[in-house]
Amino acid sequence: MEVVFDASVYIQRRNKLKSSIGSGQLLLMGNQESSINFKDNWYHFRQDSTFLYYAGINKPNVHVIIDIDNDTTVLYGDELTIDDIVWTGPLPSNQDLADQVGITHCKPLSDLTKDIRTEVLYLPPYRPEHHILLSGLIGIDTTKAGQSYSLRFVHAVINQRNIKEEREIIEMGRAVNHSYDMHNAVMKAARSGMYESDLVGIASAVAHHHQVPFSYPAILTKRGEVLHNHDHSGFLSDGDMVLYDGGCESRSGYAGDITRTFPIGGKWQPLQKDLYDVVHQAYHKSVKAMRPDAFFKDIHLLACKTLAEGLKEVGFMKGDPDDAVANGAHTMFFQCGLGHMIGLDVHDMENLGEQNVGYSQEIEKSNEFGLKSLRLGRRLQSGYTVTVEPGIYIIPALIELRKSQGMYKDFINYDFLEQHASFGGIRIEDNFLITDTGSSLLGEENIAPRTSKEVEDFMNQFS
Amino acid sequence: MEVVFDASVYIQRRNKLKSSIGSGQLLLMGNQESSINFKDNWYHFRQDSTFLYYAGINKPNVHVIIDIDNDTTVLYGDELTIDDIVWTGPLPSNQDLADQVGITHCKPLSDLTKDIRTEVLYLPPYRPEHHILLSGLIGIDTTKAGQSYSLRFVHAVINQRNIKEEREIIEMGRAVNHSYDMHNAVMKAARSGMYESDLVGIASAVAHHHQVPFSYPAILTKRGEVLHNHDHSGFLSDGDMVLYDGGCESRSGYAGDITRTFPIGGKWQPLQKDLYDVVHQAYHKSVKAMRPDAFFKDIHLLACKTLAEGLKEVGFMKGDPDDAVANGAHTMFFQCGLGHMIGLDVHDMENLGEQNVGYSQEIEKSNEFGLKSLRLGRRLQSGYTVTVEPGIYIIPALIELRKSQGMYKDFINYDFLEQHASFGGIRIEDNFLITDTGSSLLGEENIAPRTSKEVEDFMNQFS
Repeated sequence: MEVVFDASVYIQRRNKLKSSIGSGQLLLMGNQESSINFKDNWYHFRQDSTFLYYAGINKPNVHVIIDIDNDTTVLYGDELTIDDIVWTGPLPSNQDLADQVGITHCKPLSDLTKDIRTEVLYLPPYRPEHHILLSGLIGIDTTKAGQSYSLRFVHAVINQRNIKEEREIIEMGRAVNHSYDMHNAVMKAARSGMYESDLVGIASAVAHHHQVPFSYPAILTKRGEVLHNHDHSGFLSDGDMVLYDGGCESRSGYAGDITRTFPIGGKWQPLQKDLYDVVHQAYHKSVKAMRPDAFFKDIHLLACKTLAEGLKEVGFMKGDPDDAVANGAHTMFFQCGLGHMIGLDVHDMENLGEQNVGYSQEIEKSNEFGLKSLRLGRRLQSGYTVTVEPGIYIIPALIELRKSQGMYKDFINYDFLEQHASFGGIRIEDNFLITDTGSSLLGEENIAPRTSKEVEDFMNQFS
Repeated sequence: MEVVFDASVYIQRRNKLKSSIGSGQLLLMGNQESSINFKDNWYHFRQDSTFLYYAGINKPNVHVIIDIDNDTTVLYGDELTIDDIVWTGPLPSNQDLADQVGITHCKPLSDLTKDIRTEVLYLPPYRPEHHILLSGLIGIDTTKAGQSYSLRFVHAVINQRNIKEEREIIEMGRAVNHSYDMHNAVMKAARSGMYESDLVGIASAVAHHHQVPFSYPAILTKRGEVLHNHDHSGFLSDGDMVLYDGGCESRSGYAGDITRTFPIGGKWQPLQKDLYDVVHQAYHKSVKAMRPDAFFKDIHLLACKTLAEGLKEVGFMKGDPDDAVANGAHTMFFQCGLGHMIGLDVHDMENLGEQNVGYSQEIEKSNEFGLKSLRLGRRLQSGYTVTVEPGIYIIPALIELRKSQGMYKDFINYDFLEQHASFGGIRIEDNFLITDTGSSLLGEENIAPRTSKEVEDFMNQFS
């Protein structure tokens, strides 16, 4: 991956960061290659997103120190030897790359230890190599390196990265459109007699066609109620409903994060359609409600209420939907959050702390079941980019647990629910930019089918 | 991935290991999830191969201690809570998994620190998480954990894993056949107007169809002379020659490692065909020469000589081929080794040390250019599985370097070579079992085209 933007972009970003923090020495740690089953067999390289944002250089084992007091920015990394070039072919030097991102000084890696000060500010490490690096650089125990990061640095980065630049929004649209391409290819190809893995393969071929990696491991399953499901061994038959949560990156590293749910054979079963329409209603109301200054937590609760209303109509719930949500009864069906920040990371900046990214001094993250899985609660601002992803998930283990605990008896029709315990899961997810007046969909509006009818019509074109 | 073999297999393997080492406490470290750009966004999970071999359990964050003196084997790992099960669905418990591999004792992870002795024997760590784990367990500095591994343990594992069991050979055949499927799909689809990445996507779809990962990142390039080339951005036109080095795993975790080179448009250019036939001749002679007790280094040198003879005929080299190889002049075209061990790792057990795996007390690894890249030099034994992968690579930077050094003037026709400096690279690679009398190809004999004529004929079926 090339440097994406002009040098002036990275210079401006660093200047803003410097003035926001005021003084001190800032360490931006680049990522290293990640070993699979022996040292030199590597997973695909992914640069740290904050490093990409401020330093733009997409190669392993380089780091940057911004010294605010002395107004210097230095790239640390080792150049290829002629021996290396025989194996890798000619590659741009670190100095060439530094020039492209407006960094004037390059030094070998060994100078990092010399130049770093013990009071250097750094961000929370999330890879074990970063714990070891920090331990070596500032003599801190590897197990403690994760705790002594700079919260001031964290907030400065979040405040900057949370508000997307125009050029970032264009890149995010590309990531979403590529992700829609994957979804449409999967829906077009899906047939009885395939395995889930065959469809993941089709998505992967589309991502390769765009020369980008998945932004996260694909969830593609007829057991959509298993929320962290990365198994793809299921065999598909007519009548099965497939939940596909998959996205890929733009070439610039921005993430798409899209979910569609569709019926194998191209025709919804009646209950599938009913519950799909309930989820779509929650999606629709949530999207309409997003605007600057609205708490995303309130939009999440609006989605919960909309789901509860629909689930009552279908027969799964009873009682007053407001009371049901106040009592948490909707978490029998919607155990997770309505959405999260998205950007260079699919859960944008999650390594900087969920409370820091998704909440604020105004609003703390809850510990309640359901709300504790809501990654984003804070007031929306123009320039935020977020996912909206309501769903209905019928989880046999949870029904059994809650029934045995005697919970939600006034709101849940357990008999009806148990009859449909093997129903599965539905989710609809798109990505949005918060605008001055509301929100706008990232990517092209009419590429991907979304309503139950659109999904059927789309699939029937190819059946 | 399920446990692959019967419990008795893992028990026998551990018993053999115990009797080979004699006494002490052995630590088998399982791998953990590997983070991409934040903690919970993970690359696909790959268990450590030695752990798979002796303990068979394919899940993250479990470890085993074999106490030879007290004759106990304990699995350390934490069980899922009901909270986890809501997200993951029901999964087998550690105790269930332990039963499947004949381990009777399970303990929580926290007991590992209590039970481990400072003189525990362990293998060289290759992931940063293992350095941190060892540091915490035995109080060793993270930077030193890599040095104080047990060489006795290393050799015991190598002596056992080097000789493949019948059941392993069957699995390796599966890995190779799946890999051939990828190659044939790529050759069948390859057309002028595609990008290299489109073909990688096709290979990926085939691997997903078999529900397996690549065993290493694909090399698929029209610049086959760049030996460590993982760029796939090249545009393909008729007359280009594509080198595809790609393999996938069997579901049991064994690696395939296959290379084919083919012309876009299905018709070789004359020089492409001539050099392809030279490489094929080296392949053919090497395969014929493999047998127990032969040094693989000698087979490598036979390949080098065969290449030198052919290159002389085509006009790139001159003088006596034996002298040319003795002087290293063939390394202008063949800079790397003829092959390596293959098994659960594509470079089998490379984390245990190349000298330990590929060499022996009889024969040390050379430091010469060319030979220093030969991963396997030792005497072959019945039951070894190896790759054979001769090639010709014309590397402009190397021509420039060697000419400027005044090297190989008696053996290289620099004028002719410089005329063809942009030729590219060719490699042919298959995987073999050493038998009692010679060698046999892993995978099915007639699936994949191999000679220049077979490649043309295969491609022209689909053009």
